Amino acid sequence: MLIVQKFGGTSVGSIERIRRTADIVAGELARGHRLAVVVSAMSGETNRLIALAHELTPEPDSRELDALVATGEQVTAALLAIELQRRGIDARSFTGAQAGFRTDSSHVRARIQHIACERLLAHLDAGGVAVVTGFQGTDEQGNITTLGRGGSDTSAVALAIALKADICDIYTDVDGIYTTDPRIVPNARKMARISYEEMLEMASLGAKVLQTRSVELAMRHDMPIHLRSSFELVPGTIVTREDESMERAAISGVAYNRDEAKITIKGIPDHPGIAAGVFGPVADAGINVDVIVQNISEHGLTDITFTVPRSDFRATMAIMDKVCAEMGAKSVAGDDSVAKVSVVGVGMRSHSGVARKMFDALASEGINIQMITTSEIKITVVVDEQHVDQAVRVLHAAFELEKPREG
Amino acid sequence: MLIVQKFGGTSVGSIERIRRTADIVAGELARGHRLAVVVSAMSGETNRLIALAHELTPEPDSRELDALVATGEQVTAALLAIELQRRGIDARSFTGAQAGFRTDSSHVRARIQHIACERLLAHLDAGGVAVVTGFQGTDEQGNITTLGRGGSDTSAVALAIALKADICDIYTDVDGIYTTDPRIVPNARKMARISYEEMLEMASLGAKVLQTRSVELAMRHDMPIHLRSSFELVPGTIVTREDESMERAAISGVAYNRDEAKITIKGIPDHPGIAAGVFGPVADAGINVDVIVQNISEHGLTDITFTVPRSDFRATMAIMDKVCAEMGAKSVAGDDSVAKVSVVGVGMRSHSGVARKMFDALASEGINIQMITTSEIKITVVVDEQHVDQAVRVLHAAFELEKPREG
Repeated sequence: MLIVQKFGGTSVGSIERIRRTADIVAGELARGHRLAVVVSAMSGETNRLIALAHELTPEPDSRELDALVATGEQVTAALLAIELQRRGIDARSFTGAQAGFRTDSSHVRARIQHIACERLLAHLDAGGVAVVTGFQGTDEQGNITTLGRGGSDTSAVALAIALKADICDIYTDVDGIYTTDPRIVPNARKMARISYEEMLEMASLGAKVLQTRSVELAMRHDMPIHLRSSFELVPGTIVTREDESMERAAISGVAYNRDEAKITIKGIPDHPGIAAGVFGPVADAGINVDVIVQNISEHGLTDITFTVPRSDFRATMAIMDKVCAEMGAKSVAGDDSVAKVSVVGVGMRSHSGVARKMFDALASEGINIQMITTSEIKITVVVDEQHVDQAVRVLHAAFELEKPREG
Repeated sequence: MLIVQKFGGTSVGSIERIRRTADIVAGELARGHRLAVVVSAMSGETNRLIALAHELTPEPDSRELDALVATGEQVTAALLAIELQRRGIDARSFTGAQAGFRTDSSHVRARIQHIACERLLAHLDAGGVAVVTGFQGTDEQGNITTLGRGGSDTSAVALAIALKADICDIYTDVDGIYTTDPRIVPNARKMARISYEEMLEMASLGAKVLQTRSVELAMRHDMPIHLRSSFELVPGTIVTREDESMERAAISGVAYNRDEAKITIKGIPDHPGIAAGVFGPVADAGINVDVIVQNISEHGLTDITFTVPRSDFRATMAIMDKVCAEMGAKSVAGDDSVAKVSVVGVGMRSHSGVARKMFDALASEGINIQMITTSEIKITVVVDEQHVDQAVRVLHAAFELEKPREG
């Protein structure tokens, strides 16, 4: 098999960890696989570099910030190649530029356009291991760019696709995706497989193990991802396209996110363009609006409620006060102690009654639902933050997630 | 003027020092000069990176070592560009690859072949400041290479030549070249000017301020170097081609090096090829032989005496014991407590009696001369290490070096 392996910051966070990572690489090589290895910066290194820049100015130039932080992965790649060579493995490091990662010119949050991986492939074809810096590339003019936080996952998946690899193994400090947070539900179960869609819904709700962009990319090109621990060599969770075995259960996991805030605009005149009028300024401020609920119109007035990350609550309230005065809304109210709880599952499509079972379970515990939104494979409720643990537990039990869903 | 500035590790060794360096750059810019700035890694950083590699193996792969340590200058270049931009200066960092430094493929000790500086020049022509990583480039295949310790001086001079700069300002932690070590001779005088040839002779004898390669390169292309302090903005020493004013004094400085060892082979059969037989194995071991003296042959036998760095003494003795047994020499003797003292000056060419004055001065102090070698502009004696200070003082006084030699 041709495997792209990706090791995150904690997996290469010290010389000792780099040796351990080399063990894993050597092990897969001994099994006869061909390997390209994507690495992150040593944990803490990216922050150290950014802190240096911030000692100079709170807003460092983004082109130069990219040139600065891109060194972190280069150090790791060289060190891992040195360790592999010491073991007699023909390993060679490749920077983003050398590996052919061509991106657009959006510094600090660049997107990969294509990977000119001929040179890297030639090294693999000659029996070598390629150690590639994650998180970075160069634009058309040769400027160094970075993909933004967590970009190394995307680098790995993109490289796997470009190389037509069989699988992309992402090694991290967790050993897989669980039906819910084991700290809340001790009998939460590790899933052997999960679909891309479910992973996306889980990830956006706080199970932030894989960068969303990397999962979207994998889904688009049908590249399986094996999410696994670099600390313990046991099977993790394979993120792959939906298959038959996944249809058996209605839902596969319960996700939650505590860091939410809710804002309600009451009595806003209901005419075309109000959504743009309300959310345009929020987007301009770089704030991500998540759940949005708009009630039906009464007497030409409507209510809009939405959530934002809690850290953006104050800024959003300030924008809303201004916007709503301009738009003639009656009032703006906010609550920065709410949380989201979701059930996720591709099986939801073919199982009726999932929503009802969810609401019944929450009601049985006396948990008040403040907002509801649904997608094809997810139902999300907004509840008071103090009810999160209770809600997760009752839902995990109600959908019998402690039982294996396959076989 | 178009100026290439070079700042060494101590000049960029902290955020505070980077700010100070930005002051110097901004000052020259305010004077209307166009600037390319070559930077070293922050002091200690290169050693930190090498130590990481050595934690993995005593002999890290040289290609990967280059990829590793090249990050040091990239960090500095980005940080300085960030600080300059903060001040409203259109500064941009360039890695060795981006600045077009093409080298051969000799990792860890690459040589610059040419600089494709069109892109950098375009930035300068647009009124910008280019901040360039010293010490590094890429080979024809795009592999990252480094020039070896002190290579940033060579980068700066090579860039000055490629850009047809007016001068190359090398900022360091000393404020110029003195007639001798002021710690030994308190009235040693800073030289306003020194010829390339003299600088080379001074540098190879311990006044290790400028990398020898950079001086040779500057000499070949007649690029003046202004060696100056980044801590105190006073004129330093300009290294330039020999001019009339330099001819006035017989010698311009006294140099010394304590870390020498002397080895004598006695009674070796004198026939063609003995030098190769003796020195070949030493060169193979990577040891630099410095002064070599061969006495005239008597009865078909000759004596050879040479010096090596003291740190190579034991290894060289071991080689000599073996070699001399094979070549039928009578004996091998060593002394690892010798030192070299030299007088240097282009004026020596037109002034007779320099050697005599030197030997007289040493004799007056009762200092025994163990070896003598001469070049066009230098006379070197090997003496017992305990006499070094005394020898330097008496020579500095004998040649009246405390008096300004120009005007």
